[in-house]
This record gives sequence, structure tokens and C-alpha cells, in this order.
Amino acid sequence: MSLLVVGSTAFDAIETPFGKTEKVLGGSAPFICLAAAKFTKPVRLVSVVGNDFPAADLEMLTDGGVDLAGLQQIADGKTMFWSGKYHSDMNSRDTLVTELNVLMDFDPQIPEAYNDTEFLMLGNLSPQVQRLVLERLPQRPKLVVMDTMNFWMSVALEELKITLKLVDVLCINDSEARELSGEYSLRKAARKIMAMGPHTLIIKKGEHGALLFQGDNLFFAPALLLEDVFDPTGAGDTFAGGFIGYLASINDISFESMKMAVIYGSALASFSVEEFGPQRLHRLTHDELNHRVHQFADLVQYSVPTI
Amino acid sequence: MSLLVVGSTAFDAIETPFGKTEKVLGGSAPFICLAAAKFTKPVRLVSVVGNDFPAADLEMLTDGGVDLAGLQQIADGKTMFWSGKYHSDMNSRDTLVTELNVLMDFDPQIPEAYNDTEFLMLGNLSPQVQRLVLERLPQRPKLVVMDTMNFWMSVALEELKITLKLVDVLCINDSEARELSGEYSLRKAARKIMAMGPHTLIIKKGEHGALLFQGDNLFFAPALLLEDVFDPTGAGDTFAGGFIGYLASINDISFESMKMAVIYGSALASFSVEEFGPQRLHRLTHDELNHRVHQFADLVQYSVPTI
Repeated sequence: MSLLVVGSTAFDAIETPFGKTEKVLGGSAPFICLAAAKFTKPVRLVSVVGNDFPAADLEMLTDGGVDLAGLQQIADGKTMFWSGKYHSDMNSRDTLVTELNVLMDFDPQIPEAYNDTEFLMLGNLSPQVQRLVLERLPQRPKLVVMDTMNFWMSVALEELKITLKLVDVLCINDSEARELSGEYSLRKAARKIMAMGPHTLIIKKGEHGALLFQGDNLFFAPALLLEDVFDPTGAGDTFAGGFIGYLASINDISFESMKMAVIYGSALASFSVEEFGPQRLHRLTHDELNHRVHQFADLVQYSVPTI
Repeated sequence: MSLLVVGSTAFDAIETPFGKTEKVLGGSAPFICLAAAKFTKPVRLVSVVGNDFPAADLEMLTDGGVDLAGLQQIADGKTMFWSGKYHSDMNSRDTLVTELNVLMDFDPQIPEAYNDTEFLMLGNLSPQVQRLVLERLPQRPKLVVMDTMNFWMSVALEELKITLKLVDVLCINDSEARELSGEYSLRKAARKIMAMGPHTLIIKKGEHGALLFQGDNLFFAPALLLEDVFDPTGAGDTFAGGFIGYLASINDISFESMKMAVIYGSALASFSVEEFGPQRLHRLTHDELNHRVHQFADLVQYSVPTI
């Protein structure tokens, strides 16, 4: 099924306890697209880069199954740049630099060929731009998934709430869920957030797994216990890409299918954190992915006797 | 099968964001015993209290299936007292008062009738006393499970390491595992700790579930997503009691049985946190427990297709 991804495309400079890199491909869109394209191709992309965006990265995206017809290249602009440093627990980070550059005036244009989009992923981006994409599609997609982050809760909460009303699934992490709802208990937080619009909520807990809520239904996907997490940047985007990519590939949005989509998202994210940038994701084979999905299943498998 | 529990018996005064209590029954032993006795009765107890220990608490323990032949009552001493206050996230707490009282000079005596003990639970207590109990049993039990905490890592690390060499299963939380091993990655921490003695390690992660390691085998039990945690005191002891009680009841110490034992421990702990003290545990029925165990199973259940 047709899948459209909108999100940021950026250069990242990252420092973790394990290493340091300058200017690797980053932003929400590349991770989402490369993850989703493991299940369905081509993945349609609406994003923006500057005149400094390398041909090699464009090639990698195309090679990974991404359709670039909706990627704007601004001739006199620079690609967004983000720089951050992770703390020793890898669960928190400081943003050192954010230069929005061409993303500042991003006016998303939907190629006419994308008008029949059935699955829409609104990757992390300003809620106004996310909403614009949804409004510019002539018909509402079958499933709209939105990712966002605490930054937008601080600077654009009202806009965020308006966009939230229009989406089906929201994907955020545990601290963002607590911030958005004002509740510490994730069960209470989930109820409040689902009352804001989305019928389904995914709360990502990093190394502690992910929760999927829909009405009174609840599913928990553990995280694999990795030896080391090298770089968590993009893990959440990768998760979201795997989630919607799997659903688009089977063209089914039932709760049962969403459970499996959460497992695939988690499995993909566990690869993404092994290296800087989306390269590991790009190289990933279906055999590797299936093997890891079975590790997930084994991790929680047991049989229940009755005492 | 015969199960012996050694641990502290205390009065607790607890403050949480949800309420406050003075002098409820606490210490590691009551929680472990009442949890274990849901599976196997009687549970043998070696512990110590003072002349201030109420008959009502003794009755509750006896009624709950605990054999008190090994409980010393010191005529001129006071029962241990602990007081603590939980922070708003319920994951961390400040100890306000610790009065060891009769526990200070505790010399554990094993009733002769306990000499055939096959399952031994060394509840949180000084590692010297834990070791004494093991040494005073004429034959080594089939399974020795030890619980400990960061306090003993600070004040008695060398003693702890000696006792650690003698046990089969160690039960600690994630921050304790990191402290004991000096490793942030729990996978690496587990490997190091298992090299210190225990062939099996359980790492409790509170609201994030529990990990069971044995050689290269790994199992993860999620925590139920509770609406609220009222008082986490004793949750780890309850978990340990459920773990060893289940294994003793089926007289099986295979990894497969330990998986189920972790699930039962988690289920019991999820009840224990609903109220101050071990009262909730005491009232708990098998029907309630079985129902919750099935909720655990549902939480992580899905079927794996191959893409």
C-alpha cells in the first residue's frame, strides 16, 4: 500500500560515551523511510534539504527504496544541522546546536502522484507543517501516524493539540507522555492523551520496551537487552518507520497487526542504535531482521500452568 | 518441598505520595514468607523480633502458612524499626531511620526439624548472617536463593562476595547490579555477577519488569502497568518469595520453571504494592493470583509472521 513520510532531513554531529561523529545523515525522515522500506517500496518522502546535501546520501535513500519526488532541494539554502551529546546512561542528551536552515521556511509540497496515499507518517517536525501535509492531501489516508517530541510541547503546545485531533496513532516516549498529560502513571497518561484525539498511543520506553494502547487494549513489547547501545539517535524514528511500514505492507490496521508492527519497530530500532547514522539500517537484511524478531519472541515466551 | 526463609522482621513507618503509615509489619521475612506460602506450606522462618512484637502479627503469619519455630523472641529487646519516604516517582526513597535493635546481635538458630531443608531463601540481611544459616544446615539445600541490597555493597562488600560464592540464584535490582559489577550494560553486569558465584541472576527493574539470566539463557518478565503504585516497600521481597515458593512447590529448578517462577513473583509483587504492609498479600486468593498471571501472559502475547 502507498506510504508517505514527511519529516526532517538533517546532518547530525553526535557524541556518545563510545565515540564521536561529524555530519552524518540524520533527521527523522531518513530513519523512518529506510525502516519502512524494509516492508514496502517505494516509500514516498516529503522533506527538504539544502544545496549542500551529498549525492551519496540521495543515492543511499533511492537504493534503500525511497522515492525522492517530494524531496525539495533549496538551491541557496543549507540543510538542517543538529548536534548533541549523550550522557553516560544514554537515556538523556544535551542538544548543543540546532540550525534549522532550510527547514525554517519549509512549505511541504505533495507531488500529484502522492494524492492516493493510504498510509501517512508525520515524522517529528513542527505540528503546523505536519498538519499542512494532511490538509493538502485530497483524501484522508486510511491511517495517520504522528511522532513528535517534548520540544514542540514547549514551543507549540496549542498547535500540537490541534494536529493531535487529526491523527490516528501518536508515538512518543515516556517522559513526553508524562509531560503532555501531566500524569506520572503511564496508564492514566495514556487515557488522557487518547482523549486528545488519537485512538491509539505508543509510548516508547527506550531500553525498557514499548507500550501500545488502544481503548482498553494494552500490549507490551520488550526491548532486546543489547550488549551496548552505540548511538540512540534515530531509534524512535526507526521504530515509527518499522511500525507504519509493516502495517502498510499488509494493509491491515487491526490491533493484532499493530502488536506485530510494534515488534518489528522495536527490532529495527535495536539495529539502528548499533552505529552512527542510518547506515546499519540500510545494510540490514530480511534474514537478520527475522532472526531478531524471533529473539524478541523467545525473550518473553513461557507456558502458564494454573496453581 | 521444604522451604526455609531467613530474613529481617521489622516495623516500618512509610510515607509515599499517596499516604503515610506508622509501624506496620515489615522487614524482608514477612513478605517473603507470605508470598511463598501461596504455593507451599508451611514455610519455615528463621528471624528475630523483640518483646514488642504483637500477637496479631504472629497470628497473621501462622494463619498465612508460616511455621514460627525458628522465630526468636528476645525478651529484653526491641524489634527492628525502619522508616522511609518515597520520592514522587516511587522509584527512589530516602531512609529516615534505621534502628537494628535485636537484629544487631542476631545469631540465627536452626531448629533441628529444619535440617532437611531443600529450598533456602536468604532474604535481605547481613551477608555474614546469611552465610551462617547456610553453614549451620547439615546438608546443602537443593536451591539457595539470595536477596541483598546496595547497603551491604557499601558496608560489607567483601563479606557479600564470600556469601555470593555459595548461592545458586541472586536477586537484586538494576541499580544494585550496576553497582556490584561496575557495568552499565545489564548484559555485561549479569555476566560479571554470575562469574562471582551464582549460576542464575534475577535483575528486578521495578515498573520495567524483571530479567532472568542463566548462562546464555535470558528471559524477560514485564511488569503489569498498574494504575498507581501505593507503596513499593516489600515488592522485591514478595517477588523473591513467590519465585522460590513456586519452585519449591513443584520441586523443579529448571530454567523453564524459573521463568514461570519469575512471572508468579512479578504477579505477587503487583498485589503487594497496592497497600502498606503485607496485608494485601495475606488476603490474596489463588483466583486473584491466577487471573493476574493470565493478564501477564496477555500483555506480551502475539504471533510472529515471517516477512
